[in-house]
Amino acid sequence: MYEARGEKHWFIPDGYIPEISSGALVSHESVCVLNCSSEEASVRLTIYFEDRDPLEDIVVVVPPRRTNHIRTNSLLKNGEPIPVGIPYAIEVTSDIPVVVQYSRLDATQAENALMSVMAYPIK
Amino acid sequence: MYEARGEKHWFIPDGYIPEISSGALVSHESVCVLNCSSEEASVRLTIYFEDRDPLEDIVVVVPPRRTNHIRTNSLLKNGEPIPVGIPYAIEVTSDIPVVVQYSRLDATQAENALMSVMAYPIK
Amino acid sequence: MYEARGEKHWFIPDGYIPEISSGALVSHESVCVLNCSSEEASVRLTIYFEDRDPLEDIVVVVPPRRTNHIRTNSLLKNGEPIPVGIPYAIEVTSDIPVVVQYSRLDATQAENALMSVMAYPIK
Amino acid sequence: MYEARGEKHWFIPDGYIPEISSGALVSHESVCVLNCSSEEASVRLTIYFEDRDPLEDIVVVVPPRRTNHIRTNSLLKNGEPIPVGIPYAIEVTSDIPVVVQYSRLDATQAENALMSVMAYPIK
Repeated sequence: MYEARGEKHWFIPDGYIPEISSGALVSHESVCVLNCSSEEASVRLTIYFEDRDPLEDIVVVVPPRRTNHIRTNSLLKNGEPIPVGIPYAIEVTSDIPVVVQYSRLDATQAENALMSVMAYPIK
Repeated sequence: MYEARGEKHWFIPDGYIPEISSGALVSHESVCVLNCSSEEASVRLTIYFEDRDPLEDIVVVVPPRRTNHIRTNSLLKNGEPIPVGIPYAIEVTSDIPVVVQYSRLDATQAENALMSVMAYPIK
Repeated sequence: MYEARGEKHWFIPDGYIPEISSGALVSHESVCVLNCSSEEASVRLTIYFEDRDPLEDIVVVVPPRRTNHIRTNSLLKNGEPIPVGIPYAIEVTSDIPVVVQYSRLDATQAENALMSVMAYPIK
Repeated sequence: MYEARGEKHWFIPDGYIPEISSGALVSHESVCVLNCSSEEASVRLTIYFEDRDPLEDIVVVVPPRRTNHIRTNSLLKNGEPIPVGIPYAIEVTSDIPVVVQYSRLDATQAENALMSVMAYPIK
């Protein structure tokens, strides 16, 4: 049995899905979750905006001893995706400890730009 | 009622507003604040320089259950903006816990470059 | 005698070896380990995937008072490298405290993109 | 009197001074130190390598209520700079608490790439 490691509650204040892609790569963001335990992790994402109410409790599963690099543009709440081209923020909760990193590839220009942060853990 | 999460005091040592933009995007920095609580957060920014006294107590409000991606070039202290093209640092204090991330898009060249860090929390 | 500093257990959820390089630089990732102590550090990496079992216990040595910027494409487990072009995650354990940072240079396009994070420590 | 904030001991495992610059910007790294206190901070940097002994105790001063974005290529130890084009790591100690962030601009290609991390604090 492998033990769960990390935290159950994480925040990423700077979310943004670029509107445009050009060149060889597609603009995207990933919420990268690592579950190093022998149990499945049930992860919930809440999306906060600047000017409207949050989208709450989008559920994603991370199998035991696996990582899941969740594309934010694949997330749906009642059939609706996260809108592109507007600032937002992400809250991640999990039923067991996991580790969460956030990365963005911006391919608005033909040449891509990358950024990445470890999410902020609540202990 | 949603509880406030994060910390009340954060630091970002590497601030810089690029002087030039070219291509499709405009150079800018964002101080991204997430207030996941049911109460409004009153946030204060102090700007430190290498060669002059700080600009103190620029106030920004973050509504309940909202994020605010604050553009540093929009901040004014007694009508004066943060000067561009010089190194500075940022202190963020809030009356309730929030989470703070800092990102910079540098579009000095036609192709953009991105960087991002979680601000450093004082607990 | 110099004391060991940092932690013995770190995580990097967002690993990815780009498939393509163009221009003057080669796409690569580095797991940068600093051992500031007077003793050798024995470091073990475990690689997690989205759809298959982990590659466990790849061993790397970091000499006393040295850094080792480990190229992930140089790591071998039973003669097999980490596959390129697929998402993965990294666990780092060490027999003495070290500090771990992860950086990626993506040269898929002729113009390079950089990202870097401090790994997430388990204390 | 303003209180010192942050930590007295920080690490940055991934240091690298690019050999080449092209386009409008010059490749460089900055160790960005913020001293928000009313006292001067005396900061010491030790540089670790992969294949030789460290350069120890390069001293830099950060005045009260100021930031100092230290260019690594300006640092000298017995008249010698940090060599370019090789991997290294940085240890930062300070006599009073400060906050430390590390950023790199790589302008090897005409279009620049940026990365930044908060240094790792020892508490």
